Amino acid sequence: MENVNLVPDMDQAYDESIEKIFELMEEKKYFRCRDELLKHNEVEIAEMLVDIRRKFDLQRMVVLFRALPKDISVDVFAELSVDDQIDIINIITDPEIKYILDELDFDDMIDVLEELPSNIVDKILTTTPKSERRLINTFLKYNEDSAGALMTPEYINLKKTATVKEALEHIKEVGLDSETIYTCYVLDRGRKLQGVISLKSLVISPDEAIVGDLMHEDPVVAHVDDDQEEVSDLFTRYGYLAIPVVDNEFRLVGIVTVDDILEVIEEETTEDIERMGGVIDSTDREYLDMSVWQHVKARLPWLLLLMCSYFITGGIIQSFEAALSQVISLVIYMPLLMGTGGNSGTQSSTLVIRGMATGDIELEDFLKVIWKEIRIALIVGVCLSSINYLRIVFLDHNPPGVAITVCLSMTVIVVIAKLIGSMLPMVAKRIGIDPALMAGPMMASVTDMISLGTYFIMAGLILNIG
Amino acid sequence: MENVNLVPDMDQAYDESIEKIFELMEEKKYFRCRDELLKHNEVEIAEMLVDIRRKFDLQRMVVLFRALPKDISVDVFAELSVDDQIDIINIITDPEIKYILDELDFDDMIDVLEELPSNIVDKILTTTPKSERRLINTFLKYNEDSAGALMTPEYINLKKTATVKEALEHIKEVGLDSETIYTCYVLDRGRKLQGVISLKSLVISPDEAIVGDLMHEDPVVAHVDDDQEEVSDLFTRYGYLAIPVVDNEFRLVGIVTVDDILEVIEEETTEDIERMGGVIDSTDREYLDMSVWQHVKARLPWLLLLMCSYFITGGIIQSFEAALSQVISLVIYMPLLMGTGGNSGTQSSTLVIRGMATGDIELEDFLKVIWKEIRIALIVGVCLSSINYLRIVFLDHNPPGVAITVCLSMTVIVVIAKLIGSMLPMVAKRIGIDPALMAGPMMASVTDMISLGTYFIMAGLILNIG
Repeated sequence: MENVNLVPDMDQAYDESIEKIFELMEEKKYFRCRDELLKHNEVEIAEMLVDIRRKFDLQRMVVLFRALPKDISVDVFAELSVDDQIDIINIITDPEIKYILDELDFDDMIDVLEELPSNIVDKILTTTPKSERRLINTFLKYNEDSAGALMTPEYINLKKTATVKEALEHIKEVGLDSETIYTCYVLDRGRKLQGVISLKSLVISPDEAIVGDLMHEDPVVAHVDDDQEEVSDLFTRYGYLAIPVVDNEFRLVGIVTVDDILEVIEEETTEDIERMGGVIDSTDREYLDMSVWQHVKARLPWLLLLMCSYFITGGIIQSFEAALSQVISLVIYMPLLMGTGGNSGTQSSTLVIRGMATGDIELEDFLKVIWKEIRIALIVGVCLSSINYLRIVFLDHNPPGVAITVCLSMTVIVVIAKLIGSMLPMVAKRIGIDPALMAGPMMASVTDMISLGTYFIMAGLILNIG
Repeated sequence: MENVNLVPDMDQAYDESIEKIFELMEEKKYFRCRDELLKHNEVEIAEMLVDIRRKFDLQRMVVLFRALPKDISVDVFAELSVDDQIDIINIITDPEIKYILDELDFDDMIDVLEELPSNIVDKILTTTPKSERRLINTFLKYNEDSAGALMTPEYINLKKTATVKEALEHIKEVGLDSETIYTCYVLDRGRKLQGVISLKSLVISPDEAIVGDLMHEDPVVAHVDDDQEEVSDLFTRYGYLAIPVVDNEFRLVGIVTVDDILEVIEEETTEDIERMGGVIDSTDREYLDMSVWQHVKARLPWLLLLMCSYFITGGIIQSFEAALSQVISLVIYMPLLMGTGGNSGTQSSTLVIRGMATGDIELEDFLKVIWKEIRIALIVGVCLSSINYLRIVFLDHNPPGVAITVCLSMTVIVVIAKLIGSMLPMVAKRIGIDPALMAGPMMASVTDMISLGTYFIMAGLILNIG
């Protein structure tokens, strides 16, 4: 038998479909577009709608969205970004909005409501049953990035005294509406969380076993006010599919599921990486969806701030101008020293920031980190300096005095840069600033000042100038 | 009622226990240590053992590990890092090894076997049943970072013609040993994947319904050779709990579960961030567990490589030395231009690298990205230049010629830096290099050369020197 690859290439199928849809759109054959869309699952349809919006416009995306069968349109809606969702809501009719919101999972609905103008929210709430209205209002009160905002109130609540058979029947009855039924929760009369039990335990246990005997009594929980980053750390640490969220009295108010956490992790990582790269406030949008002005707004402030630091760097050079003109060859090694200082500092700050983000480094490890960095820096500094000494004396044919100045400076600069690179993020965390801001560009500016200062002081001492 | 916070502070409970354990260890009261450990779940016990190893030594960690009840010791073992696992295996007896490996989930066992020296693996395999030995050997053949290495062969296999009742009974029989039973798989006689069905569907459907009618026929699959990053993208995109892994003939060979993916995501993100910060090959270890020499090995090569680029930068300055000594005040603005160039480039490369990692930016978007960056760069460049012009003329009291040179250079540098910053990662990806290497330090070195070159050419043209 020939070794033919039978696995369908999903990306290729996607690309072919979207090409076809673009052609059909040009010819305004919307119903054939819809049929092409319906060959895919809801995630892919949502991605295709976004592609259509980018290629054509919002109007035509909404035309296709409305052409989808109602039940599919809700699933597709749930996969769109909140921005796209709001734009759609602003165009479609009130009954359509109502249908979508009714069918959405509770936590997805809250995400949409949070972003809508309050007059539209009020209009929607007037047609909602009173009990659900109260629930919605409670959820809208939680902080945007808290466990409360992330959770869903739809979970399976079992009696401690129920048998497995009764429990499974109860799940069969209510299960359809719950976002996840793989972990069930046992509450006392005051809604306090008494234990959790997995659907797996229920399914593999004898019918007559008692829930209270099978349940796990000491579950890992999140508090409603916990930051979403803490919640996602719990998932990474324990590998659970869902984590219960409790209030101050240990009453169960909702659950967070792992699929929502995958999104949180991506969001938090992007925020960290962007801050480390000197970009602020990219407002959760995709690169290509942001306008030129939004990009400028996300980048200019940081560049301006860092530019100010170069007023100081410039001042350092200016105060040393006379000495520099005596030994102009010193200028040649300025970029080398500034660059090496910046790179050394960036390495340390990157490792410490990431270590703190993954929980490998705690604030209590401050002294351990410092002591490690000093030793690393001395070894790295001496290696780099030795190579540079040879280069300056034998390749550049500069006097040994200049070489000694550069190499001693380099060792001192690497040590200071690595110390600052490891200390700044920890200090930032201690005083409540995001450590990720203490990386790349910030680091480079600080080490530039230190590098030049060190260099010129050394030159003054060794070459007797300045 | 007073508003007392009844939620136990898990971190605090952990800290108190570990303090107590440290004290008991000093007094060599190992059995009381064990009792203290057993108050926690397996994840926390594993973390405590690591703390004990750090505070004391490997020997004492193993003493405590062996004192744990057998069933708990396996769960704890599974939570340890592979390094710790191997160190333990090298100390404990063969029957203990055999017990642990037998009880471990299949994919965790493969992870351990992969790292063991082959003579130990052979010794273990001689006592393993033949069928399992063949399975182990197959799994050991997959690439370390592929779907094949990540998957487990333990999954629930249902007949298409079975009723829900029969299916649930089958799950009850075999379920206990499977790592996840929340998604079940329907195979034909040739083991080709025909469909998937969630345990949820089974539990909420009537007893007499047929699996074939309920199953989802077109499941998302991964191929055994897919890179783990592609597999984790599938999870982020679709939010599933498990994804089936198939071979070239579409035969099901295993499944990957979301809890393993959370670890992959953390690992891949750390690798990306570290590479962006100029650290290579940190070998998946935690910062504090790496020796000083391992840290030097992860940092020195990059610093050496980048240092070479400063030979070129130095050369550029040298060739301009005579002109510089004519207008020494030009030196003052060198750090400003190099720094702003580096920061502008870093911003662009960070956004593009992250955009490609999350799938927001594709290689086909090359021209769109370039066009966006040019417009952003022009706006940013002109803003920064205007402010600098005022500073140079009115604060530094330097001649307008110098100011014009600096400001024109700055605009050109920002444009070039942003172009290179966005193009380099995309070009790298195109030719198969990790785009994350084209960030921070690398970017800074390249833009330093460009900044100085541009500056000196501009100075030559405008100030008529050089």
